[in-house]
Amino acid sequence: MIPVISTIDLLKLASGDILSLQVYQFIGRQPGKKAYIQANLHGAEIVGNAVIYQLIEFLSTLAEEQIAGEIWLVPVCNPLAVNQRSHFFATGRFSSYDGKDWNRIFREYQTNSSDLLDFAKSQLNNPPEIIKRNYRERIKTAWQQELKKIEQPKSVPVSQQYRYQLQSLCLDADYVIDIHSSSNQAIDYTFCFSERAETARYLLVDYGIMMNEYNGYSFDEAFLNPWLALETQLSKLGKAIKFDIESWTLELGGGMTINPTSVATGFKGIKNYLNHKQILQLSESAIAYPITLVKKDKINSYYAPTGGMIQSRLALGTKVNAGDKIYQLLSFNKQQELPEIIDICTETDGLVFDISINQCVNQGEYVMDILDCSN
Amino acid sequence: MIPVISTIDLLKLASGDILSLQVYQFIGRQPGKKAYIQANLHGAEIVGNAVIYQLIEFLSTLAEEQIAGEIWLVPVCNPLAVNQRSHFFATGRFSSYDGKDWNRIFREYQTNSSDLLDFAKSQLNNPPEIIKRNYRERIKTAWQQELKKIEQPKSVPVSQQYRYQLQSLCLDADYVIDIHSSSNQAIDYTFCFSERAETARYLLVDYGIMMNEYNGYSFDEAFLNPWLALETQLSKLGKAIKFDIESWTLELGGGMTINPTSVATGFKGIKNYLNHKQILQLSESAIAYPITLVKKDKINSYYAPTGGMIQSRLALGTKVNAGDKIYQLLSFNKQQELPEIIDICTETDGLVFDISINQCVNQGEYVMDILDCSN
Amino acid sequence: MIPVISTIDLLKLASGDILSLQVYQFIGRQPGKKAYIQANLHGAEIVGNAVIYQLIEFLSTLAEEQIAGEIWLVPVCNPLAVNQRSHFFATGRFSSYDGKDWNRIFREYQTNSSDLLDFAKSQLNNPPEIIKRNYRERIKTAWQQELKKIEQPKSVPVSQQYRYQLQSLCLDADYVIDIHSSSNQAIDYTFCFSERAETARYLLVDYGIMMNEYNGYSFDEAFLNPWLALETQLSKLGKAIKFDIESWTLELGGGMTINPTSVATGFKGIKNYLNHKQILQLSESAIAYPITLVKKDKINSYYAPTGGMIQSRLALGTKVNAGDKIYQLLSFNKQQELPEIIDICTETDGLVFDISINQCVNQGEYVMDILDCSN
Amino acid sequence: MIPVISTIDLLKLASGDILSLQVYQFIGRQPGKKAYIQANLHGAEIVGNAVIYQLIEFLSTLAEEQIAGEIWLVPVCNPLAVNQRSHFFATGRFSSYDGKDWNRIFREYQTNSSDLLDFAKSQLNNPPEIIKRNYRERIKTAWQQELKKIEQPKSVPVSQQYRYQLQSLCLDADYVIDIHSSSNQAIDYTFCFSERAETARYLLVDYGIMMNEYNGYSFDEAFLNPWLALETQLSKLGKAIKFDIESWTLELGGGMTINPTSVATGFKGIKNYLNHKQILQLSESAIAYPITLVKKDKINSYYAPTGGMIQSRLALGTKVNAGDKIYQLLSFNKQQELPEIIDICTETDGLVFDISINQCVNQGEYVMDILDCSN
Repeated sequence: MIPVISTIDLLKLASGDILSLQVYQFIGRQPGKKAYIQANLHGAEIVGNAVIYQLIEFLSTLAEEQIAGEIWLVPVCNPLAVNQRSHFFATGRFSSYDGKDWNRIFREYQTNSSDLLDFAKSQLNNPPEIIKRNYRERIKTAWQQELKKIEQPKSVPVSQQYRYQLQSLCLDADYVIDIHSSSNQAIDYTFCFSERAETARYLLVDYGIMMNEYNGYSFDEAFLNPWLALETQLSKLGKAIKFDIESWTLELGGGMTINPTSVATGFKGIKNYLNHKQILQLSESAIAYPITLVKKDKINSYYAPTGGMIQSRLALGTKVNAGDKIYQLLSFNKQQELPEIIDICTETDGLVFDISINQCVNQGEYVMDILDCSN
Repeated sequence: MIPVISTIDLLKLASGDILSLQVYQFIGRQPGKKAYIQANLHGAEIVGNAVIYQLIEFLSTLAEEQIAGEIWLVPVCNPLAVNQRSHFFATGRFSSYDGKDWNRIFREYQTNSSDLLDFAKSQLNNPPEIIKRNYRERIKTAWQQELKKIEQPKSVPVSQQYRYQLQSLCLDADYVIDIHSSSNQAIDYTFCFSERAETARYLLVDYGIMMNEYNGYSFDEAFLNPWLALETQLSKLGKAIKFDIESWTLELGGGMTINPTSVATGFKGIKNYLNHKQILQLSESAIAYPITLVKKDKINSYYAPTGGMIQSRLALGTKVNAGDKIYQLLSFNKQQELPEIIDICTETDGLVFDISINQCVNQGEYVMDILDCSN
Repeated sequence: MIPVISTIDLLKLASGDILSLQVYQFIGRQPGKKAYIQANLHGAEIVGNAVIYQLIEFLSTLAEEQIAGEIWLVPVCNPLAVNQRSHFFATGRFSSYDGKDWNRIFREYQTNSSDLLDFAKSQLNNPPEIIKRNYRERIKTAWQQELKKIEQPKSVPVSQQYRYQLQSLCLDADYVIDIHSSSNQAIDYTFCFSERAETARYLLVDYGIMMNEYNGYSFDEAFLNPWLALETQLSKLGKAIKFDIESWTLELGGGMTINPTSVATGFKGIKNYLNHKQILQLSESAIAYPITLVKKDKINSYYAPTGGMIQSRLALGTKVNAGDKIYQLLSFNKQQELPEIIDICTETDGLVFDISINQCVNQGEYVMDILDCSN
Repeated sequence: MIPVISTIDLLKLASGDILSLQVYQFIGRQPGKKAYIQANLHGAEIVGNAVIYQLIEFLSTLAEEQIAGEIWLVPVCNPLAVNQRSHFFATGRFSSYDGKDWNRIFREYQTNSSDLLDFAKSQLNNPPEIIKRNYRERIKTAWQQELKKIEQPKSVPVSQQYRYQLQSLCLDADYVIDIHSSSNQAIDYTFCFSERAETARYLLVDYGIMMNEYNGYSFDEAFLNPWLALETQLSKLGKAIKFDIESWTLELGGGMTINPTSVATGFKGIKNYLNHKQILQLSESAIAYPITLVKKDKINSYYAPTGGMIQSRLALGTKVNAGDKIYQLLSFNKQQELPEIIDICTETDGLVFDISINQCVNQGEYVMDILDCSN
């Protein structure tokens, strides 16, 4: 089948050029759920574009009957970040205007608690699908305010102009997958909400990181948190509902590179997930994969205790025990001393989860993450 | 009198070079309060260094009898930021490592509320000076934990290593003045806490911006908030105390420049303030200046509604009425249209408070602030 | 009259977005010469865009009879540079890919000397207009090679892809005006070739800088040098011709700002120049202005002898005598010394010609230019 | 033996901090030649620091009798570049002040040709060692002028202040080794002068790139070119001398990483070279390794023909034949088209010599080098 392809203007540059998004919509013959999948929100994290390319290739081979509902695909979803360069490195993690992480700018629908309580009460006799529809209406209505702010003389900063266009694409989605990578180098994994951890097994990655601390304003949270808040409120009123609405940040490999293994993992996982959710109507069955779920605060970051050069660092995926040497720092000085080698050992058991690209570090620069899988 | 000059190592760079702070301490013959004054926390905001130079010159002319207590001066207090360059512009507002604003990294002493309640209860029979001493001990003890974290194998990021050294200098201060400028171009003013607004008049600037919203982790808040929390707690227990502990962010002029008028304003204001606080024992009396106090949310920022070139923008300090034209945007395009001129009008009455240095803006880039002085 | 407006794609970004040029062509009823005027080749130098806007406004009021020949206008002619940001500063002076100055990338038509000699000999019996036409054909033919290189699998770097599009617009121009500013802050002036200095008076600026040293690969040189080489060759063969082909780099004000006075100067000068060249057929006569011509090596740049803060620097345009104090450096240290003030004096008589925007300088950073007008 | 360690101040930053060099000198009991070895002139190229560390370790185990002459070692020889960061990438290839490549700033001793002729004539009856001594004196005398320029009120730019300190260390060296890496990712090789190609075999790398085109102002050229010019002049006068003075740019691995194999290659090669030159007096004999010498213009750089993501690129060191596919470009668009995959094939036979770190490229960004080894 052939996708509907549409282009959405994002913002005009000082030069008069306009940066845009392009959306590929595969719309099935049967009605159904809407999956929204984007890639490259951080400029260096390009793996997901190759995954989306493979999805487009694959979906194009399907007949319309094989899709129930809709699949929306948005590669290179942040042109501002993708095109940020310093020397020839892709540095698009933070907006250069305000230093904000491009994945901490999103607007979450929130009402004050009495409004939410009133709404929940008014829905107690409705079936879940009606509640969902009514709540979505509220979210969309609130979203109109964002556009009004943009149109005022004061207007709003770059990040708010951008988020308006991007979030508008998935306000009515059922499943959101935001494909990232480490901006450094990392293993493949997914972030997941503890309330939706069950389904993580269908993404076919080895590790799931559960967000036990509130991150704030990330794309996945901005989408799902309003629904979790509603579930909590309804539950307090004695009506326990779990909406079939999910949000994932899928992390595939490292920055500035397209690792073919990570691409294959991402493609296979997303296809399986869409099959499980029955948007894809395939002959094969979806499979569930054993996944190790770990809380986010079990990621222990190591920073350089002094300036120097990183040597003999353990490779990604290495298992370590507390006290094992994980890297060396070759440190020079300007006090007429010989250079010294400093051994750094892990404080906990765990797994080498993420490592810096740059092995030349000032004191306090990031070196590596150890994921403590105990517990 | 001659200051005690000491150098404190901040952090070692990858090259083996070490960045340091240098502290000038003028210690009076009589015991008394401690004033701590620093400048250039954001790399582009250099005016305060010239103010500190004038203070050093002036204090050097005094006899030891003319100071009661201590005055600590720290120019160029953030070498990492001061030396950040892009092309030849000083861009040191955000850490390049994590995109964090250099003035949103500081650690605030906080206890859980039951601890604070217990402490407050235990002090009800003590006089304010004893409470102050006891509370400071708690702050210093908590601060030891920061050092312990730095010394672990994991260590801590650049910003935490840096803040440890910097905040250590003023844990026991009574008055903190952190001299900033706009990174853009602005009028002279001071940020102030509503609980300390009374004394703002001694800084001899025309405007005071009251922080009605919590900013978070700025240097002034990190210093004063613990004391405000204690005051609130004691007050709830029926013991209303206002500690003579104050914190100011003094804003002088614009980025990358040393405006002599702003230097003169800063020097005169700080000298007068120290005189008022009787650290300086001068023959002349301190004076109080009428100051217009405005809440922080009355600063209305204007962002470019589309990409273009800013023209005909009103000058700093201009008074405006709602509906007045405040700038034009000359906007080019790539759709075979003529370029267009767009007029932007102010939504409120007010004062041109801050303007961007760069008149070439992408859609959503900052253009100017209008301070709405209506109450 | 209404211009023909056309858009030319420059290059595709990694995100799939395309940056373009837009050209405004005012084509008169009578045939005649072609003037090509562009602005904003360096990203920070935006003044010329406002000049071009005023030219568009003005030319639009004319009847087609009032133009003989063509006027091509290209504002924001370097979108890559215009949109380069660091923090909020426009840093587009160098390509981030190879560090090259955006105005040192252009291709100059060159043949080996025997080819040029052969060509010159073959033209000895032709009138200037025919020689001009024949030489242009050779230039255009050589230019085809550039496109061939782009189309090879190896392709060519960003700067060569860009220059191909930009220089293609003016290969057949008679007069080229490339409007720049200082990326710092400067007075208004024009660069000029000594062989064309006579006409500089019609640009109505006070100073002309004559390029006595070969700069290399700048836009103005790349356009004019081939013609100067031909003139030299013909002259050696006894046929002295001065082609009516000219090239100017007009420097208006400073970086990141649109100084209305500089805009007015630029508009008035270009209009007068086009009138003098009879492309504009106006009722008023072109006027010639006394201009001070100075050789380029008379611009003396001053660099910071040590790191510090610039104070008390003389204002732009100030006349100085050798030995006069031109700025102070407030220099801090980390060796337990008091900060010091260093006075810097000019080595020559002259004029304050250009000053740095940033008053915070590392040792060796640029501070100011003194133009030595003696001679 | 224990090295003499000395620290040399380079330049003071705006913050008052000073960046320095540290030199490790191993001075043998017997007089002899001087070898000068430095690393990390470009900020991202850190491999050489680890090589120098291993050399320090190794030389420290020797007795003073085992060194004839002197070995000077300068790790992290460019602190300005080493500490340049953007996000967390080390971008120190170009000075941010003037966009200059840090290895194109060096001063080459040059006289006008009649001076050189006069000098050469005056030395015709001298033995090579005396000529060497006399020529060095001239070089040193000329070098004094550099210092005088620095000390003038005008002073000189950062790069000239820096080069003065760095080049001063090796004016009297016999052998210079400047250890670089690719700022991207590359195989190990050495640059060499065709006049010294014979000795390249002792560096124990597989490839030598001969500089057939003049690069200009690189560290190796600035050191050796004056001697080559003298040799040429003497040869014209009938006195063919080849001074035992050599200069190498040794390229080990890629940017931001310390590849242990490259470190081992570098250490082994330099030790062998010093042994061959008899500065090291070791029991083992120096060995010569077969090396493939290729002219520099046989490095064919491939640039992206359009914007996109690099996929399926051949690995470093792969042998290719003309017409082989060397990489794919996954290119997105904003014109409602499907993304496309573009295959790029090599124009020549050769070897994958160097590849970009970043696989996300704008049109015209660097992708890879193919070294054409055919002769």
